[in-house]
Formats: sequence, C-alpha cells, structure tokens
Amino acid sequence: MKDTKHLGKRRRIIDGLEKVRGKARYTADLSLAGMLHARPVLSPYPHAHIRAIDTAAALALPGVVAVLTGQDLNAGRTAHSRPSMLLAQDEVRFAGQPVAVVVAATEAQAADAAAVLDIDYEVLDSVDDAEQAMTDTQLVWPQGVPQADSSLAGLHGGEASVQGDETRSNIDERRVFERGDVESALAAAHIVIERTYTNARVHQSYLEPHAVVAQPGVRPGQVTVYTSTQGQYAVRSEVAGALGLRTGDVRIEPMTVGGGFGAKYGIVDALVTAVALHVDRPVRMVLSRSEDMLTTMPAPSTSIRVRLGADEHGQIVGLDVQAVIENGLFRFGHAGIIATVVGGMYRCDHVRIETLEVLTHRPPVGAYRAPGVPQALFALESSVDELAHTLGHDPLELRLQNAVQGGDSTGTGRPWPDIGLKACLERAREHPLWQSRGTVPHEGVGLAVGGWPGGFSPAGAVCRVDTDGTVRLHVGSVDISGVHSSMVLIVAETLGIDPEAVEIVQGTTDSGPYAPASGGSQVTISLSGAVLGASQQVREQLLDLAASHFEAHREDIELSEGQARVRGVAGQSVNLGELAQRGQRLPGGPGPVVAEGRAAIKGGAPGFTAQLMRVRVDPDTGHVTPLDAVCIQDVGYALNPLLVEGQMHGGAAQGLSMGLYEGMHFEGGTLTNPNFLEYVFPTSSDLPPIDAVIVERPSEHGPFGARIVGEPPITAGAAAIANAIRAAAGVRVTQLPATAEHVWQLMQQRDQQAGHPPGRTEAPHPS
Amino acid sequence: MKDTKHLGKRRRIIDGLEKVRGKARYTADLSLAGMLHARPVLSPYPHAHIRAIDTAAALALPGVVAVLTGQDLNAGRTAHSRPSMLLAQDEVRFAGQPVAVVVAATEAQAADAAAVLDIDYEVLDSVDDAEQAMTDTQLVWPQGVPQADSSLAGLHGGEASVQGDETRSNIDERRVFERGDVESALAAAHIVIERTYTNARVHQSYLEPHAVVAQPGVRPGQVTVYTSTQGQYAVRSEVAGALGLRTGDVRIEPMTVGGGFGAKYGIVDALVTAVALHVDRPVRMVLSRSEDMLTTMPAPSTSIRVRLGADEHGQIVGLDVQAVIENGLFRFGHAGIIATVVGGMYRCDHVRIETLEVLTHRPPVGAYRAPGVPQALFALESSVDELAHTLGHDPLELRLQNAVQGGDSTGTGRPWPDIGLKACLERAREHPLWQSRGTVPHEGVGLAVGGWPGGFSPAGAVCRVDTDGTVRLHVGSVDISGVHSSMVLIVAETLGIDPEAVEIVQGTTDSGPYAPASGGSQVTISLSGAVLGASQQVREQLLDLAASHFEAHREDIELSEGQARVRGVAGQSVNLGELAQRGQRLPGGPGPVVAEGRAAIKGGAPGFTAQLMRVRVDPDTGHVTPLDAVCIQDVGYALNPLLVEGQMHGGAAQGLSMGLYEGMHFEGGTLTNPNFLEYVFPTSSDLPPIDAVIVERPSEHGPFGARIVGEPPITAGAAAIANAIRAAAGVRVTQLPATAEHVWQLMQQRDQQAGHPPGRTEAPHPS
Repeated sequence: MKDTKHLGKRRRIIDGLEKVRGKARYTADLSLAGMLHARPVLSPYPHAHIRAIDTAAALALPGVVAVLTGQDLNAGRTAHSRPSMLLAQDEVRFAGQPVAVVVAATEAQAADAAAVLDIDYEVLDSVDDAEQAMTDTQLVWPQGVPQADSSLAGLHGGEASVQGDETRSNIDERRVFERGDVESALAAAHIVIERTYTNARVHQSYLEPHAVVAQPGVRPGQVTVYTSTQGQYAVRSEVAGALGLRTGDVRIEPMTVGGGFGAKYGIVDALVTAVALHVDRPVRMVLSRSEDMLTTMPAPSTSIRVRLGADEHGQIVGLDVQAVIENGLFRFGHAGIIATVVGGMYRCDHVRIETLEVLTHRPPVGAYRAPGVPQALFALESSVDELAHTLGHDPLELRLQNAVQGGDSTGTGRPWPDIGLKACLERAREHPLWQSRGTVPHEGVGLAVGGWPGGFSPAGAVCRVDTDGTVRLHVGSVDISGVHSSMVLIVAETLGIDPEAVEIVQGTTDSGPYAPASGGSQVTISLSGAVLGASQQVREQLLDLAASHFEAHREDIELSEGQARVRGVAGQSVNLGELAQRGQRLPGGPGPVVAEGRAAIKGGAPGFTAQLMRVRVDPDTGHVTPLDAVCIQDVGYALNPLLVEGQMHGGAAQGLSMGLYEGMHFEGGTLTNPNFLEYVFPTSSDLPPIDAVIVERPSEHGPFGARIVGEPPITAGAAAIANAIRAAAGVRVTQLPATAEHVWQLMQQRDQQAGHPPGRTEAPHPS
Repeated sequence: MKDTKHLGKRRRIIDGLEKVRGKARYTADLSLAGMLHARPVLSPYPHAHIRAIDTAAALALPGVVAVLTGQDLNAGRTAHSRPSMLLAQDEVRFAGQPVAVVVAATEAQAADAAAVLDIDYEVLDSVDDAEQAMTDTQLVWPQGVPQADSSLAGLHGGEASVQGDETRSNIDERRVFERGDVESALAAAHIVIERTYTNARVHQSYLEPHAVVAQPGVRPGQVTVYTSTQGQYAVRSEVAGALGLRTGDVRIEPMTVGGGFGAKYGIVDALVTAVALHVDRPVRMVLSRSEDMLTTMPAPSTSIRVRLGADEHGQIVGLDVQAVIENGLFRFGHAGIIATVVGGMYRCDHVRIETLEVLTHRPPVGAYRAPGVPQALFALESSVDELAHTLGHDPLELRLQNAVQGGDSTGTGRPWPDIGLKACLERAREHPLWQSRGTVPHEGVGLAVGGWPGGFSPAGAVCRVDTDGTVRLHVGSVDISGVHSSMVLIVAETLGIDPEAVEIVQGTTDSGPYAPASGGSQVTISLSGAVLGASQQVREQLLDLAASHFEAHREDIELSEGQARVRGVAGQSVNLGELAQRGQRLPGGPGPVVAEGRAAIKGGAPGFTAQLMRVRVDPDTGHVTPLDAVCIQDVGYALNPLLVEGQMHGGAAQGLSMGLYEGMHFEGGTLTNPNFLEYVFPTSSDLPPIDAVIVERPSEHGPFGARIVGEPPITAGAAAIANAIRAAAGVRVTQLPATAEHVWQLMQQRDQQAGHPPGRTEAPHPS
C-alpha cells in the first residue's frame, strides 16, 4: 500500500467524542414507553434443591408487577448452555444462577422486592473444582449433559476433531490431537522439561455490566432486543434458539458497548426476552457489578501439564501436553483453540495434546479474548523458557530456531499460511529492552511469544452518497476497538474524500448488512473487503454521473477532496453531493448513488506476537513490580496504526494483569470476590509503559495485506511476566496470578532446596 | 400481468395488526432518557406587535426548564415558509403563530407554565380574507415577502411557468396559462356558462396531531428528529434549511403516521429541533387538537370564476378561469397544479387560466391530497354540468364527447401520456346508479370527473434473505395508505415465496435507501421498480447458490413456495434460508444474499376518475343526505386491489365531506372552530355505501402498468355532490360546503326567481 492518503495513517477513533462528551447511549440509558424494570434473584449456593418460592411478600410491595420463576418462563425447555438458561427450576447448579426475576415499575421497587423474595433451599453437595470433578463419584449431570450448542465457540475459529468419547463422568469431553510418536521422541530426547501450570478463573471485567432491554413486537413471539453485544446475529440465534422463536421474529439492536472482550454475546438476553414476552411490556435488566461477576461467563481455570523434549542443540523433538479445563456447568469448547496454538508455535514432528473438558458446579465459562490461549501459552512458554535456561541457551535464539513459519503445522495438523512469528522474534532481538537485559539485580526481562489463527466470514456493507456530500457506510458490525474507525478510511481513500465526511450507520439484524461478530479477531478483516467493494462501485457511479455532468469521457474524470473534475481542465468541479442529487432527483435518471459490497475472503491471516516484560521482584516479599512492557506484533498492514496500537496496549495490559493480578477466588463453589475492590486489576497508573511495535508482513488473504489484530496481544503477556520473574528471581512461577505470596514461597523453596529445583530437570540460578 | 400468484390479488394491509393491537409506536409514545416536554404558546391575534414577554411567573413554576422566545431561537434568520418559522419576534402575523415555547420536565408542568406566560400584545389591523387583501391598501408584507421556498409544492408535481409579476401588493403571484384566443372563442360560442365558485378552507383532519421528538447528537448541530411524517428526506431539508444545519447532520427517523393527507412534511419540526438544540436535551412536542388546527397548514379557500363556452353540439370551444387562492401568510404554490388539471380535462383550443396567489394574515396553507384540485374541479365540473343541463344534453355524454385522451394538452400545454378518463366515463355509463338516475323525487345523481398527473422520482430499495428464510425489504419510503403492503407482493412474486415471509425494514435518512416522500401519489410507482430490481438480483443470487448446492445447471433451478428445486427432480429441495446460510457462512463463499435496486421511471402515469353521488335534498330545509357514492378509477394495474379500493373509499369520502360538511370558520382572521366538535366531518356511520370500481388501462411507464392511485379519488367528490344537488333540487351550489342553509337559500331564490336563474344563461328546472 504505497501513496495512500488516509489508509495506514494514524487517525483518531470516530466514537471518541461521543464517549468523552457523555453522549453515547448505552443500553442502561434506554427508556421505552411503558418499560418495566427487572432484577434477577441469584442462588447463593452452588448446588441446592429449591423447596419452595414464596412470592407473596414480594408481590405485595408497591410497583411490583410480577415475580417470575422457572415454572413461569422455562416452558419445559432444557438449557444446554449459559445463554440458553432462563431460571433454575427445582435445582440450582451454580452459585449465581438466576432463580427468579422480579419485575416492577422502577428499578428501586424491583430491588426492594427481590430482597424480600423468600426462597427455601435444601443445600446439596457440590462439585467445586476440577480435581474433585475428576476424582469424586458425584456427577454434575447425573442424567447426562444436556445437548451442547457450539455456536459461541465456533465464533472463535477453533478447529478440532473429537477423537475420544468418555463413559459418563464429569469429564465432558476428552480429545487427543496427535502427530508422530511423542512417547518415543521424549524417551530419546536429550532433555525433557516437565511441569504443571495452573491458573485462576479470570473475568473479562468490562466496565459496562450486561444490560438488556426487550420490547415485545406486534405479533406473538416478535421482539426487539436492545443489548450490549459484540454481535447481533449471534445474540439473535441464542435468543431465538433458547425461546423457540423464529429467528426472523427476533430483532436485535446492538447498542454502544462498554467493553466486551468475548463476553458480550447475549448471556441474559434470552432471560430478559422471556420476561418481556411474559409480561407483554418492554423490560430492562441491568446487572449490578456483583450480579455480573456471579452469573456471567468468565475464562476457565486450567491445569496444564507440559512435557517438552529437545536435543542437545536446543531443537525441540517432542511435546506432550495435557490440559484440564474447568468449565463449570457446561463445556464451552476451549480444546480445539488451545490445541491449535499450543501445538502450533514450534516445529515438532512428535506432538500429543490431550484436552479434558471438566464440568463442575460453577458458572459456565465463556470466551475471553483469545480464549484459552494466554493460559496455554503460560504453560508452553514457561516450559520453553525453562528449556533454554536449562540448556544455557538464549531464550530468544532457541525460539527463533524452533519457531513455525508458513507451511508448518498448527496443533491440529493443518498448515499455517504465511505468518510473522519469526519476524516478531527478530524485531524483539533488536529491542533495547532485550539488549539491556540482565544488568540490574532483582530485575529481569522475560520473553514469550503468542499468536492467534483468527476467523474470517463473509460480510456485506452498503455505501451511499447523500445530497450534501455525506457518504454513509451502512454496516452490520458492532464497533468495538475502533473497527469502524478503520472502515471510514477505506471509503475515504476510494472516493477521494476526507474521512470526516464518512458516517457510519449501525445496522440491526433486520436492516443489515450482514457482518460477523466483532470477536475472534475477524471483523475488520472480514468487513474491509465488503467496504472496499461497495466504495468502488459507488466510485464508478460517481464517475458516470460526473462524465455526464461535464459531457466528458469517463476516463478523464478524477475524484479528489470531495470533488469531481475533468483531469487537466482547471476551474471546473462538481462536488459529490451535487452528483448524488443529479442521480437522485432526475426523473428517469440513474437513481440514488448507492452500492452494496459483498466479500468473502479465502483464507486466514493469522497474527503473531513477541512480548517482553521487565519486572522487579522484591527479594524480601516476592512482590513483583512491572517496569516495562513491549508488544511486538505482526499486523500485516496497519489500516489505522493508532487503533492497532490501542489493541496492542490493551491486550498487553490484560496479559500482564492475568500474569500478576487477576483471579476469581472460590470457596467451595462460591465466588468470594465478585466486585472490583477484591477482584484486582491494574488501573492505568499501575501499568508500566507499553511499547507497541508494529511489524508489517503482508498477508496474502487479508485486505491490503492486513492481518488479524485483536487477539494476539493478550496471548503472551502472562507467560512473559512469568519468564521475567524467572529472570529476576530464578524461580519458576507455576500458577497465575503470580502473587507475592506465590513468588515468596517459590523463593523460600529455592533457598531451601538450593541445587534441587522442582521438576525432573536442572534449572540454573538467575543470571 | 397474467398468471401472477400474489400481485393483483387482494391481500390485507401489513400494518393492520400492530394498529388494531395498539402496538404501533407513534411519536407521542416515544420517551427518551432525559427527555423534556415542550408546549407552544400561540398568538390569539392575527396581527399584533409583541410589546413584551414576561417569563418570570412561568419560570418560577416547578419543573420548568426554559421559556424560549424568538430572541432565543431565531438567531436572526428570516422564515420564508411555515416550516421554516420558529417563533414570532416583535410581530405576530397569524392567529395560531407560535410566540414562545415552554420547556418542562413533564407535559403537565409545561402546560401549566404556558398558561401563566404573560405576553403583552398591541393588536394591529389585519388582512383577514382574500377580498380584503386584493382591495385594501394594507400589505401583509409591507417590506416584501421573504424569499419563498418551493420545495414542498415541488413534491406535488405541479408544472408551471410564471408568466406575470405584480408590483407590490397582497397578490404574491399572478400567473396566466394561455393557449389560443379565449376571448374570441367565447364571443363566438353558442353558449357561455359563467359563474363563480367559492369554498372554505378545509383541514386535513388526520387523527394524529403533529408530534416531534428531537434529540441532540454528539457533535454541535447534530440532531435526530423522530417525527410523524410522510417523507423523511423532505423534513430533513426543511429542518436543516430552517436552522442552517448541514443536511447530513440532521437524521430523521420517520415514525408511524396517524394520517397525513399532505400535511405531514415537518411543520413544527424545525421549531422543536431548535428548542432541543438550545436546551441540549431531548425534547418532545405533541400538539393538542386545537393547536394543531390553529398552527398547521390547511387547504386554501379559493374563489374561482369559470366562463365555459360551447357550440350547439356541446363541443367545448373556450374556457376562461380565474382562480383566487387565499394563501394566508405565505404562498404555497397551488397555481400550477390547478392550471394543469382544470385546463387539461377537456379538449379545447382556447384556454386561459389566470391564478392569483393572495396573502392574508391567516395561517399559511399547505398541501391536502391533490392540492387545489377538488376546489378547482368543483368549479369546472359544476360548469360542465350546468352546460349540459342548459343544452339539454346528457352530462355524461357531453363529458365523453369532450374528454381528453393521450396526446391532448394539459392545462400547462404539455401533452398527456395515455390516460383513462374516457374509460372511466364509459364505465360510469354502465353503472346501475347512473342507469337508474332521476326516478325518485328530491333525489338526484351527480357525476363529476377528476384526475391527477402524479409525480415520479428515482428510488432505491434493498432486498436481503436471512438465514431463516425471512426476506427483508429495506425501503426509505414511509408507509401510509398501504404502500409497503404492495411492495411485499412484488418481492413474493419474484422470489416465489409467501408475502408473509417478507418483512419491511423502515429506513431513516441515514440508513436509506432513498425514496421519495409518500405524497403526490408517486411513492408506489417510484418505488416498485427499485423493489423489483432488488428482488430480481436476489433471485439471481439464489439461483446461483442453489445451482452450486445441487450441482445442477442454473437454468434448471426453480424457486417456489420458499424452496429451490431442480426442475423435474422430485423430492429434493433446499429452502431459501439454507441458501442464504450457504452464502453467508462459507469462508470464501459468495457472501450474504443481498441486492440493492435503483429505479427511475421515465414518465408519468396519471390517474383519472369518474364519480357518481346520489343525494336526497330535503325540500323544506335544504338538508342534503348522501345516499350512494361510486368511485370509478383507472389505476392501470391494481398491485393489491384491496388497498387500491381503500384509497378510493378514503378519497371519495373526503371529497364528499368537502362537498357537504367541512369548513374552517374565521371571524376576522381568527379560526373559531379549531376542534373536531365544531369542525364537522362524517364518521363512518354518516357515510353512504361507496362502490369502488377499478378500471385497469395499463400505463406505459408505471411498473406492471400501474398508475398513480392516491390523489385522484378525492378530486371529483365535491363536484359530484354539487351536481347531485342540482339533479335533486334544481339549484346550482356555488359555495362549499353545501350546507343546508346555502341549499335552502338557493331553493328560495329558485322559487322567487322562477324562470330567471342566476348567471347569464338559461337553466332548466330539475328533471
């Protein structure tokens, strides 16, 4: 992309102004005529029998319109996923599960009534964690797991084939992804590094809790749902599926999203819709922070055992991974994603990845930016780092030596297209932070790599020119992370106009155009082709109109700065608005200037990253202070570098935060820190400087050479933190978050067992 | 159109259910977060100086946010039309003109504060009616009329060239449309009928008063306007023009319309928008019935003198018309429309039509279904009827003898395309009501003809197939009078699906697609080509997808009943939803099934009507009872006969009502009956049976041969009523409405002056 005027240039985000001026309308700001307010009542127990629900006291309070239970709403339907769950009936299966909904005229009246609702529970034994789930005889689903729906996982581009099936147990699915003969390879290896890595559940921690307004339509079963979502078509499927409605009867209007990160695909939307249809009134439900943390779908805790074998030259010869994924009540399907990435970072002929999807009486897990990959790469990249330390090799050079490139195999056996993992590592090698590592006591620089295959789906877009010259781009995508701020650049570039003259029109499920969800890193890459196609057709129409206006040859027309001119003829121009007017107003004329582009790209454009973290580890307390972060990422072509850097900053920050701070704490099966006081993540003042380094190795498939951007930056941060701690303090972090207590204990062990580090292999002290 | 499955078949209106279930959301139902309520304060005087406005008492009331006057809002801008008027400043120029707006937290608080607002008026002399305006020396605009905007009149397809210009007077414009030598022709005529006909102002009397919600946008000057309108693009131009905003910054969301009839093009929209931008909050204003009747734009009163000359065979040889149109404060521009029709109903080489557009201190007039034509045809068709009576000719045969056909001249000199006036008259001749006329004492059957040239503008439409098989048609037109109920039939016919599977998506000014306003009888005819084009492209896409699905030749695929099949291969089918899914989901696949059609038809498709009315005239009181109505109309091709008949019923009823009931009464310049108790129109139980007889003479330009439908049926009813009274009682009604008092007086004159009827010519007693 040479000689562009707008593409590839830093340009501010288009929805910034409305957000800083407080003008953005979130779902919670919506007030419809006759609207009622709903409050969910959540189970405090992970597993219990509902003996009785006495609604009399709640119903007697002023303003209360209805108190609804599973009997009122479920209509005999069985939930098979978190989004399809309405209300618990007879039995609750996780602490935080909605048991009833109170509907009242005001928010406060609903809350008051919810507080006095009398539910009689008989508390039952619960399956609280993965270890118990795999050893206990108690089953989470004694009658078998309700049929699962994989539609959400499908959004995240996982590719896998089920290879095993278990007899009835809490292991819902066991899969083995295997190539070569890993046992022989490890047996013959010069060195094998083996360790098990665990991590806590983490929550997506968007600032805006889930919020939904559902408004019944004209005909029975018709409904409009206003919701904070990343993808209106996905929510539509969930709501229609859960309630047995016709897809076309469910109209989703996506509202401004106050943070998504994989979690905004309609978790309580079916419930709120069912309530609205039941009371036949518009109903709003806005979750409180603690309700949101208790009842939504966080990232799973995992326990991942890695055996990594190499020859004496540092060449990786065998990789054996067993990943236990604690899913809560329903399997979400992280296995394929984990296997694809973990088995696809380094060239190796002998790989086995076994995944165990385990069910417990905890809230079902869901997608969180690159689902499962930060956890899995924490395990893999810690192992690789340990391998380098053990062999006395440079961790960067060892990675470069083994890193995959185009044509090498992913973890599920398909070949990667052209990728930039090595390019990122080469850029990391030159970075001052890497060059200056190891010079300050108690400080260390850690390196880890990451990546994400990314999805790609067909999409459409409509481009129109209005009579005042405004160009409107109608899209069905949801604008999170600045997607639309890049699309306006494509239009501006194609039509020779200022990006400010391009307005985005947000489509709903009925006004379209179709676009995939803004998740799985696919939306920009899927949408840009359609936007380009629509703009190019509009350009052709404008050229035709200008040619007839000037009575000139079409080939002699040029479009620039919002004007059409005859090339080489000075002083005469017509603006795009006048051309649109010509098309639109002339009886018998060509008609409005408008075109719809459809695009479907042919293959993926995966994005890889190399990240560096510099930390200081307090030798007395184990407290880790992050000092510097570097996120190097191959984005193929940065449509708008400012926004690409924003993605890299945010992802790196979340990775770092998973490494050092975040963890959902459970006692028994119950979450004990469902709030932002006790669930800790860094504020901007806690974060170190983050250097975002863009690498541009064009993809053959992505428009303009662009690659996926959103997910890669979160994948390597936690591992890089762990490796930095290793570099600073000589200890190998094996659980996340790497709290001061954990690091201190590791340092204690290190000092007690000097010369005998944990695991089968030798590990040197920090350099 | 042979062998259609859906087109041309009677099918119920698609928005019927939402309306009868009370689910339609009108503008007054809209409640936005933080919304305030505005009440206008209207001048009680037609002409006054505003000495002072004391806002203190109003501002002191609870909930009052602002009391705004012209000084706050007008910003020095001069209004040149009713829609561009904000608030009176210094001087009020009609009774009903908004002088201030009170903004409060609730509707009731705003009303309370409006009631105590203290405005000190100095009452001035006013120009109260057309006669005074033309004779008095007082000028309505002593400094000259502010520059007029003809955009609204343009919507109604008037074609005229200004031929005269006056020195400063209250006659804002005088035009003469002339062909041949009318004075010589009349002088040489065998007979000349001369009379002057007058009519009262009438109001469009939609059930839903004007209602607007304006919501300021993110950037200064950006605003969204929710409004009851017939055309969002027209309102956008009005609001942007009046407030000096960028057109693209004004987003209009057209709401469900509770009756339009030409009046819903944004009369108070600029005012409400200015208020919302001033207080920087969403603001709703819903006019009360009396406010609505006082401050909006009714149809003008006119005084039309006709001189009609014929030879002894009944051949019309000369027509001289002078029409005085009482416009109120601003000229609306009825002249061209009146001239086109009045001078274009009968073949005649010598025609002069002079129009005088007169200004008074009354509310500015506006469009009411076929603006000016019912009034003008009351004059013309009464004259033609009188000519037949005088000559002793059959009124129907005389009309047939003289009626225009394709190629004959309109009143402004252009030729008519092919038209069906004669076909309607021939059908009337056969009608039992005509056949049985004249058999009952004190009863009579009157005949009159009418017509409307109709507009045509380019339009766009988008058609999409959703994954559940729902087909969505995205249009920028507003659904009044069942427009969209016909569009779904075009889609259903093209794609081989049930019309129930087609959903309409209502576009806004930013989501498009562009369509002309639902007025001037043009929207169906303009839109259907675009809808057909979009559907046909979607059909092609579906055929491609089905061919690849079945691995069959594209030509062998057939689409019917929502399924695609290979012709001649039984048992295999795929539904449209599956095909859409194939297009939408397949990576690298063709993408979503969607297409936008653009259409711009090449010429008009005028619609003509012949109407019969049977009345009984009480010989003692003059009271007229309508007994039967017949509306015969050439619609070219009835896309949906049920809805075409609905238009015919409604138009005939309004014409009848103008003839017998409706009239706005002024004392001085002030309206004295601004309510539905004193402004009388018939309820459904007052109406006689209306027989709607569809004639289908296909138009060469209209899609499927269809002609314009909306306006013709209102044009002839009042004249037919007058002619029925002539047939029943032998008296010639010369003013509308034909009240019992007027008819009784005519009968008194008839009896007193037996043998000496008014006018230059002989008129026989009734047969």
